[in-house]
Amino acid sequence: MNQEILAQYRQEVHQHLTEELLPFWENRCVDRTHGGFITHFDKDGNDSGEDEKSLIAQTRTVYTFSAAHRAGHGDGRYADIARHGVDFLLEKMWDAEHGGFYWLMNRRGEVLIDEKIAYGHSFVMYSLSEYTLATGDPRGLEYAQRTFDLLQKYATDTHYGGYFEMFHRDWTLKGPGAAGGDRKTLDVHMHFMEAFTTLYEASGQEIHRRKLLEIIELLVRKIMHPEYGTGIPQFWADWRVAPQIKFDIVWGWDRFSEDGFKSASEDNTSYGHNVEFAWLLMHALDVLGIAYDEYRDQLLKSYDHAVAYGIDWEYGGVYVEGSHAGEVYDREKEFWQQAEVLIGMLDAYRVYQDEKYLKAYDATHRFVFDHLIDHRVGEWKPLLTRQGESIWTHMSHSWKVNYHSVRAMVQSLIRLDKLIQRQAESV
Amino acid sequence: MNQEILAQYRQEVHQHLTEELLPFWENRCVDRTHGGFITHFDKDGNDSGEDEKSLIAQTRTVYTFSAAHRAGHGDGRYADIARHGVDFLLEKMWDAEHGGFYWLMNRRGEVLIDEKIAYGHSFVMYSLSEYTLATGDPRGLEYAQRTFDLLQKYATDTHYGGYFEMFHRDWTLKGPGAAGGDRKTLDVHMHFMEAFTTLYEASGQEIHRRKLLEIIELLVRKIMHPEYGTGIPQFWADWRVAPQIKFDIVWGWDRFSEDGFKSASEDNTSYGHNVEFAWLLMHALDVLGIAYDEYRDQLLKSYDHAVAYGIDWEYGGVYVEGSHAGEVYDREKEFWQQAEVLIGMLDAYRVYQDEKYLKAYDATHRFVFDHLIDHRVGEWKPLLTRQGESIWTHMSHSWKVNYHSVRAMVQSLIRLDKLIQRQAESV
Repeated sequence: MNQEILAQYRQEVHQHLTEELLPFWENRCVDRTHGGFITHFDKDGNDSGEDEKSLIAQTRTVYTFSAAHRAGHGDGRYADIARHGVDFLLEKMWDAEHGGFYWLMNRRGEVLIDEKIAYGHSFVMYSLSEYTLATGDPRGLEYAQRTFDLLQKYATDTHYGGYFEMFHRDWTLKGPGAAGGDRKTLDVHMHFMEAFTTLYEASGQEIHRRKLLEIIELLVRKIMHPEYGTGIPQFWADWRVAPQIKFDIVWGWDRFSEDGFKSASEDNTSYGHNVEFAWLLMHALDVLGIAYDEYRDQLLKSYDHAVAYGIDWEYGGVYVEGSHAGEVYDREKEFWQQAEVLIGMLDAYRVYQDEKYLKAYDATHRFVFDHLIDHRVGEWKPLLTRQGESIWTHMSHSWKVNYHSVRAMVQSLIRLDKLIQRQAESV
Repeated sequence: MNQEILAQYRQEVHQHLTEELLPFWENRCVDRTHGGFITHFDKDGNDSGEDEKSLIAQTRTVYTFSAAHRAGHGDGRYADIARHGVDFLLEKMWDAEHGGFYWLMNRRGEVLIDEKIAYGHSFVMYSLSEYTLATGDPRGLEYAQRTFDLLQKYATDTHYGGYFEMFHRDWTLKGPGAAGGDRKTLDVHMHFMEAFTTLYEASGQEIHRRKLLEIIELLVRKIMHPEYGTGIPQFWADWRVAPQIKFDIVWGWDRFSEDGFKSASEDNTSYGHNVEFAWLLMHALDVLGIAYDEYRDQLLKSYDHAVAYGIDWEYGGVYVEGSHAGEVYDREKEFWQQAEVLIGMLDAYRVYQDEKYLKAYDATHRFVFDHLIDHRVGEWKPLLTRQGESIWTHMSHSWKVNYHSVRAMVQSLIRLDKLIQRQAESV
């Protein structure tokens, strides 16, 4: 029974990845004029013309093509596209004077925002390490390591632990409040875990392993809710929970009120983030050679909270966010949470073999394939109503791009193949 | 009245520094054969022949001659001696492969212990920054900054804050227990504060200022006793108090039982360390441009605990150590605590103008000048009984050398001159 449904998932995922998603990007993102990638496309997949290149979009696209190449797709063409992106990163976005990468440029490669944002640098390390793993080009790992070294020097908080996140061009810390210099976030620390994992995979260096272990412990002991194991979005420097505010520098369109506050700003967690954290933690443990059992309690809490409260069992998909105890605040369906829940539920099912995880995968998979993906154009819509009607319609901008959608398909395919093989062997 | 006694102190200090102490070192420590410094002298000031050069002794001697030159002594000769020591540090003790400085060599410059010890690197930063401030030679600051960068990369604990302290040559963390890889100490963190202060003074860089502010907060909030404000010697990585143990790598001869434990291993504080911490904190605040009042409570607790329990009002001098609440455990008189109490009590008197501090200075000054200094030879004895009889007799070894004795005289002279000038102006 499961064998059939798994095979069907696999077929859908493979077809979407190879016939819709990767061709969407291959056919339109390479900027032959100015280098790097075009990453703004409207609902029909046409260049929507925004004159910007963001550190996140450039690095994520390097990641996308590197990871797709490493997973065996593209017959070498994706390695070339990744290299094209790395050239732009190193030649245009790297700040040779102060070190680190600029946050935002126009398409010609002129700096618009020269600040050094930790979130962006997590994707520098992640994408450049993946690029070297995929292609063997040593430049990726070299600059990933230089970025790691800069963060250890300028971003660590040697009083309370963890990392500061928002810096001026010269790595002096930005001010408090919306400038973000006095806050620490789940988002940045989780993506550092993700980045250090791939950096360690590429380098094998003990220091990368050690900092990865430290940030895993930090996430589990301080950033996850002590009772529910759910992610707490924002903290003060000393790890007291901070009310969630909107920063001047944004990389997503989280919903805030006009004054930049959340209505439930101190009791708010994202189901998608929690599941993403859990599968990224499992992946980190795989790379580290540590058994999942060491973090069994955390992993189960992350997955089960999403299954119990985040999955929409009526319309499918996963909600945006809710309280730590379970009450759902926002029932809309954003693209990236769906992507992360797909991978995470396959991991949970693979390891804990509880059918509820496969049911949660199914509910999300169906919502993604039946409502979220625009099969006509090839990419995912950014935001739908609970029932699946479009709210936002663009196919890509600086913060959406391709990292969540392509990774979800590449990684789901790998996991579905494993599950199918295991079922075949157990027959 | 005070004017007379201050003038007498000044005369004694000046004479000892310029006619005994600095000549002692100038006349015998420069190793013209192998470079660097000879730092082992017996009770008569003769080379006692130990075939070792330690990172601490080499850096401290660089500090000593740099600081003496900067304070106006030696007519330029001390700058030359400091440069001679820096040459050896950079040419022989620097590990070009892994970065950082070896812990111990023989006199010919062959490595005996290649481990990277944070305590030694604190004196690298301190001495090389002082050297550049004194001479203008940029090599000092360059290597101080490289050392700072290495520590930020390899030594910080990004989970709990603070710094790990004991590393193998390649900066992988040493094991637990006596290897020291699982502990954090007052000693290292206090000397990092001292080193970052002079590094920031020399560089003016925001990152050095920021890390100095972080370590000050860490010391005051986590390392000092929450009630008594006294220093707690050892912690686990997560800042729970750890029983004080003896490490495999030592830089002093603290008294432990045969099995490496203290009898009062979890309730033990050093009067000398506490006063050293207080005056180093005042100096850091001066360099940072922050008012002492920001840390008034901490400063007064540090000074007053030593005055109330540490000073030997009968025989003079300061005891070795006791409980946080006040009970004295060890009434012997070691050289370095006397040195630090001299500077600290002059600072306390200068700022708070309470005569008790001048009395504590007097008790220590008289003990030092009447018992501790061997005026015949020119240096300080290492350890006396409470009453002032010699226990150990050597004039120098790898851990004693000249940093405490010369610094106490250079810094006391500066402070006495200020006090004398203030009194003269107030008449």
